[in-house]
Amino acid sequence: MDQRTGLPVVGMVGAGQLARMTHQAAIALGQSLRILAGDPAESAALVGADIVLGDHRYYDDLLRFTQGCDVVTWDHEHVSGEHIRQLAAAGHTALPDADALTFAQDKLRMRTRMEQLGAGVPDWAAVSTVDDVAAFGDQHGWPILLKAVSGGYDGRGVWVIHDVAAAETIVAQGIPLLAERRVVMVRELAAVVARSPFGQVAAWPVVETVQRDGICVEVLAPAPGLDERTALAAQELAIRIAAELGVVGVLAVELFQTEDGLLVNELAMRPHNSGHWTIEGSRTSQFEQHLRAVLDYPLGATGLTAPAVAMANVLGGPAGGAPGPALDERLHHAMAGWPAAKVHLYGKQLRPGRKVGHVTVLGDDPVAVRADAVAVAAYLSGGEQP
Amino acid sequence: MDQRTGLPVVGMVGAGQLARMTHQAAIALGQSLRILAGDPAESAALVGADIVLGDHRYYDDLLRFTQGCDVVTWDHEHVSGEHIRQLAAAGHTALPDADALTFAQDKLRMRTRMEQLGAGVPDWAAVSTVDDVAAFGDQHGWPILLKAVSGGYDGRGVWVIHDVAAAETIVAQGIPLLAERRVVMVRELAAVVARSPFGQVAAWPVVETVQRDGICVEVLAPAPGLDERTALAAQELAIRIAAELGVVGVLAVELFQTEDGLLVNELAMRPHNSGHWTIEGSRTSQFEQHLRAVLDYPLGATGLTAPAVAMANVLGGPAGGAPGPALDERLHHAMAGWPAAKVHLYGKQLRPGRKVGHVTVLGDDPVAVRADAVAVAAYLSGGEQP
Repeated sequence: MDQRTGLPVVGMVGAGQLARMTHQAAIALGQSLRILAGDPAESAALVGADIVLGDHRYYDDLLRFTQGCDVVTWDHEHVSGEHIRQLAAAGHTALPDADALTFAQDKLRMRTRMEQLGAGVPDWAAVSTVDDVAAFGDQHGWPILLKAVSGGYDGRGVWVIHDVAAAETIVAQGIPLLAERRVVMVRELAAVVARSPFGQVAAWPVVETVQRDGICVEVLAPAPGLDERTALAAQELAIRIAAELGVVGVLAVELFQTEDGLLVNELAMRPHNSGHWTIEGSRTSQFEQHLRAVLDYPLGATGLTAPAVAMANVLGGPAGGAPGPALDERLHHAMAGWPAAKVHLYGKQLRPGRKVGHVTVLGDDPVAVRADAVAVAAYLSGGEQP
Repeated sequence: MDQRTGLPVVGMVGAGQLARMTHQAAIALGQSLRILAGDPAESAALVGADIVLGDHRYYDDLLRFTQGCDVVTWDHEHVSGEHIRQLAAAGHTALPDADALTFAQDKLRMRTRMEQLGAGVPDWAAVSTVDDVAAFGDQHGWPILLKAVSGGYDGRGVWVIHDVAAAETIVAQGIPLLAERRVVMVRELAAVVARSPFGQVAAWPVVETVQRDGICVEVLAPAPGLDERTALAAQELAIRIAAELGVVGVLAVELFQTEDGLLVNELAMRPHNSGHWTIEGSRTSQFEQHLRAVLDYPLGATGLTAPAVAMANVLGGPAGGAPGPALDERLHHAMAGWPAAKVHLYGKQLRPGRKVGHVTVLGDDPVAVRADAVAVAAYLSGGEQP
């Protein structure tokens, strides 16, 4: 409890853009997010009032950070489950807890658990040798995917493998791997929900997500043309996963929509790129909802604020490309051209392919809002009209 | 320019709730608001990353604060015009500038200037003796208003005077005063606009404001039942005032709607209570717009995001009243009862009558959104159902 305000203190481990945007939401709730940052120049550390410098890999740093927090939560999946259990054993509230979080940290456990729940996942197998990979590819057909069991994100730790030879250097790294059938899909969807310790759940409309090079680049809310039965099935699945796994906070369930139904791709137990559109596009943003959930506050309304919402990520431009106008100048031009677009910049250096911001556009026509969001994001990325 | 982000640094003098909410808006624009605070426990100082402690009444503190800012702007009207001129003479960009700001700081100059512009104001006169007050009251009819020429806000510095005797202690204070006829009005309105150095202007829909004890307690957007001609006249008047006075940033023109037309009551040259509803209720909030304006960025769209928007202020409960549930518990109950209401708490101690937060509700029915906003604000204020 913050004695100055009579309101709780939430700590978030990690100082990326998720913590940055969670701090914005915390301000409205009368709070100030406490943030564990590795470096004072990290995205959230640039804007937060209560920055603790430390390394999320060390228990001592985590414990020091946690003291005085009413609850700690996570900007990323890289905190060790063992450390989270130690924090809990020391009497601290850390949510989502280690038991839930393991299913967002370990792709093997997640797939095993989904199968137990009767939730569809793409065919998969744990692999540790090139022969394992060859057997999987021969059984399910090439190309296949190899995925690091833990630690990957934004396309890192995921490889498309067209033949056994391509697997050799990856297997040689000695990291735990799984092989996965490359699914023929209609498109990717995401069902984002939140759950509180009390057991209240709230689901946002199901969205379509568009990936490029393994990185989410667009989100369309609600998923255009999605039939109501599939939308409801996706929401129910996400709510069931949240309840069965004991998730507290936001849960994003990344899904493949196939001719045969929905398959679970990945889980994230924190605010997620597929929910950035909720800042303006829903009555309650995923950042506010995550805070409400981990504090066991009643959850907020998740309705849309406009018939169609599109989010496009701003990525750093290609390496070696023409430098073009500076970011500040690009922002001027983007604002002049699209006065109703909502820009979110994360205060990050523009490295090629790095997520440095996003743009949200709201309106009546899904095609028009998507075109505008993509255009603004492209302009901010490279300083050129797309 | 912040070398880490390539984006400008805006400084705001004053660390109240306006700076707090401006910081939220700055985060989305990739910035972090620099804030001059008198005390680290002030509303905005609790949440900002870049807090400079100092006294806005001292030029040395202002100058030290301003160094490294691309532009400085104001959370309140209490910075001396002379100091602002010194900052400008030293090569700093300080907006709105001293020439404009004087009309928000000095009620005599403002009224004189409005009359020059042909804008209606209530009958008024500078008064310095009890005889002056008596003459004004006898001419225009009792009761009359006495107002401090400068320094008042939220009902402070404004007195309703029913007879000459009541004026004696006020006149005896020796502060510059004006007397004003008490206007018979339909209601109070506010026209909030923004203007950039380039000369671009943008106007939000005209709102109705409801005051209690001189404090704004409710804002209804758009002003219910306001005829289009009057709405347009109010917007045009505010834009003309902004242009004629050279305002940069947000300008709030508080108006009396009378049977004979619109009268200007007060001017504010900063984000204003009558624009808090824009955070969720307009495509561009007044806080983002103020930043865009002082940075000479293109201005954002000012359309409504819902047909009806209501804002109600959360005031500290009455002194000596039952303490009731703590704020955190009140917040739980308010969230449970009104899951779509947007709560904004300022991190302030709950003193009687002090603005400690606000609530915004959006919907289709002006009566329903107003009732909900008032109910949530009352609940947060006192812990009781209204």
